[in-house]
Amino acid sequence: MQHEYLARAERIMQRIQQLAAISEDPDGVTRTFGTPAFLEGRDLVQSWMEAAGLPTRVDGIGNLRARLESVNPDAKTFVLASHIDTVVNAGKFDGPLGVLMGLDLLEELIGQRTELPFHIELIAFSDEEGVRFHTTYLGSEVVTGNFDHSLLARSDSAGITLADALVTMGTNAAQLAADAIPAAEWLGYFEMHIEQGPVLWERNVPVALVTAIAGQQRVELHFRGMAGHAGTVPMHMRQDALCAAAEFVLTAEQFAQAHGKGLVATVGKLNISHAASNVIPGEVTCTLDLRSPNQAQLADAYRALLAFAEGLAAQRNVELVWKLVQQTAPVACSEPLNELLTQAIAAAGHETIALVSGAGHDAVPVSAVAPATMMFIRCYKGISHNPLENVELADLAAAIAVADQFMHLLRTQNPTR
Amino acid sequence: MQHEYLARAERIMQRIQQLAAISEDPDGVTRTFGTPAFLEGRDLVQSWMEAAGLPTRVDGIGNLRARLESVNPDAKTFVLASHIDTVVNAGKFDGPLGVLMGLDLLEELIGQRTELPFHIELIAFSDEEGVRFHTTYLGSEVVTGNFDHSLLARSDSAGITLADALVTMGTNAAQLAADAIPAAEWLGYFEMHIEQGPVLWERNVPVALVTAIAGQQRVELHFRGMAGHAGTVPMHMRQDALCAAAEFVLTAEQFAQAHGKGLVATVGKLNISHAASNVIPGEVTCTLDLRSPNQAQLADAYRALLAFAEGLAAQRNVELVWKLVQQTAPVACSEPLNELLTQAIAAAGHETIALVSGAGHDAVPVSAVAPATMMFIRCYKGISHNPLENVELADLAAAIAVADQFMHLLRTQNPTR
Repeated sequence: MQHEYLARAERIMQRIQQLAAISEDPDGVTRTFGTPAFLEGRDLVQSWMEAAGLPTRVDGIGNLRARLESVNPDAKTFVLASHIDTVVNAGKFDGPLGVLMGLDLLEELIGQRTELPFHIELIAFSDEEGVRFHTTYLGSEVVTGNFDHSLLARSDSAGITLADALVTMGTNAAQLAADAIPAAEWLGYFEMHIEQGPVLWERNVPVALVTAIAGQQRVELHFRGMAGHAGTVPMHMRQDALCAAAEFVLTAEQFAQAHGKGLVATVGKLNISHAASNVIPGEVTCTLDLRSPNQAQLADAYRALLAFAEGLAAQRNVELVWKLVQQTAPVACSEPLNELLTQAIAAAGHETIALVSGAGHDAVPVSAVAPATMMFIRCYKGISHNPLENVELADLAAAIAVADQFMHLLRTQNPTR
Repeated sequence: MQHEYLARAERIMQRIQQLAAISEDPDGVTRTFGTPAFLEGRDLVQSWMEAAGLPTRVDGIGNLRARLESVNPDAKTFVLASHIDTVVNAGKFDGPLGVLMGLDLLEELIGQRTELPFHIELIAFSDEEGVRFHTTYLGSEVVTGNFDHSLLARSDSAGITLADALVTMGTNAAQLAADAIPAAEWLGYFEMHIEQGPVLWERNVPVALVTAIAGQQRVELHFRGMAGHAGTVPMHMRQDALCAAAEFVLTAEQFAQAHGKGLVATVGKLNISHAASNVIPGEVTCTLDLRSPNQAQLADAYRALLAFAEGLAAQRNVELVWKLVQQTAPVACSEPLNELLTQAIAAAGHETIALVSGAGHDAVPVSAVAPATMMFIRCYKGISHNPLENVELADLAAAIAVADQFMHLLRTQNPTR
């Protein structure tokens, strides 16, 4: 049995490698939405689905969709999915792992001639990373029926609109509404994904249940002080925008450390205008990325850090512009599905660790229309969005065993019915 | 008398405007060493010197030099100088003001048929800013006889060596050694320059004596932590290079504030490698610019901040690379000349303010071979290296009166004899 999971894991690994060899740039893995490399990669995944005997189609937004039908035509649909687009210079596993594990599950069900009490749809979402059009969840928003059609007018950095990109991809944007799975037909949603964080690595456990996906506030801060000569302006006469920003960076860190419970705060970008080693920084722009699984905690942290930034700006006599540029609410995973996954993890003999996903996933938009949960698979040191991204074969085998068990429990208990 | 100073100030202002109209770029003032705009600007200054009846020559490094001779051929030489090269997108006053005030002084002495007990040499240094070859004091180092000939092999960003640039400028690099004023012939050195800082502006006084030029330590710091996803790495597992750098920025500020007495510390550049709003900064490079008129204080501050940076790197589990990239020792101005300038300022009815120059000036290399002092002239809000750089006409008139008096006292007291 253990040997069988390893063999399945090996085949998934081979496919991961084959897919990763298709890239916009020769040295890394880059397949952003709609590019020739993206289409070539999707064709390869489609060929594997069809070789397994699954009927497939590409929908209006470029999602690749395969179905394994229940004998009951009126049954609801359970969706297994992840994405096959990548960031620039990505790893091999972020996205494709979930799609290829889902394909493996269907191959197993087909091989076992399992009778299904529900339809299963396996979806390779076309755009989760949002690199090309600075969007979120283009692929899954179409499947949920919540796609915002005004996005069709949005342009990429080359000036190509999303509508034009879809024409080039050969899809029919007119059918986007028809590509949704009607709310009444959803049974549920399960996504398998690498953790992209270090917790499982540190705790030495191969998989975890995801109980929630953190909400996020993304802020751009601009501190405007007064530039000056680093040698000629006495310390007490300065309005140093970098010192103001540095004070904010440390306060955001300390606030998140002190308030804990899944709250994280990150200043990821910081830019000094006209920087020179002998010039006092006059203008600094930086970002704040604030996440929490708890909406009240997120809102409290946001208010506290805004008040702190205003206070330090006043105290340092610098001007502050605070701009909220993005916010998403926390999403809780489906408790019945969580319970099933917990049982599956325990049955496979692993410690059951419940994590909050700090990263966004397609499970976020899906949660608006259907019960959804996710399983995280340990990745090397938590490294992701990086060529060093890796998953151990043994962990993949362990995850396959848990997924098998999860699908078995779902078929037999169907808790979301 | 006041009217006469205003008239002289107006003529200097007209020349400042004429010279500023000659620039490498049409919208600003940019005349870096050896460019066509630089040469055209120098030709204009040379034409003014010759119109005043002064014999002129261009030396091997491109300095423009005029002499007003004493009747005594064995007399020593007193040098009035500043520079006529500029930074990129400079103001109109930094450098040219001192040259054109010196020319005005000589015109006045010629007009009054004053008998001189010493020769006066007026020099427009060709390169003080060091923009093109990343050097310091090319022009004045030649005049002091301390020019480092290995610099001739240094290249600019276009790959042109200094030696080739001198050929293009039509100068004779072979005569550089002969262009020095022999140490025994120096009587002293006086440079007039805008303050480039806000102290005179804040204290509402037109001029100041410069008692010292700060020494400087310039450091590049590199913090290497671990990049990670801003949503998935818990706060306690992070090695955030930006938080480490921010702690250093604030400590440098607090240290300089606490230790005062002319010590200033500035982090002017800070760069996050592969920055993104949703990525924990893994690598940060920043600079430290540390200045003080007191060598012991400078050395103490340097050691204390290095120890602090090492401590915070260890505490935060990030790697620190600390690289001293430049250091200059503080220079004290000549006490006899300072005393003369103090008398001149008091005689003109102004509060006598003694400043330390935080910026470097040609007086630094000259101090190695001759008694030197400087007078600072108030500039608008202390702004410099910027098109907003400005000097009020009334302040210029006040400075001319002080300079006249200084030259009168020098002729009659000759304290450096």
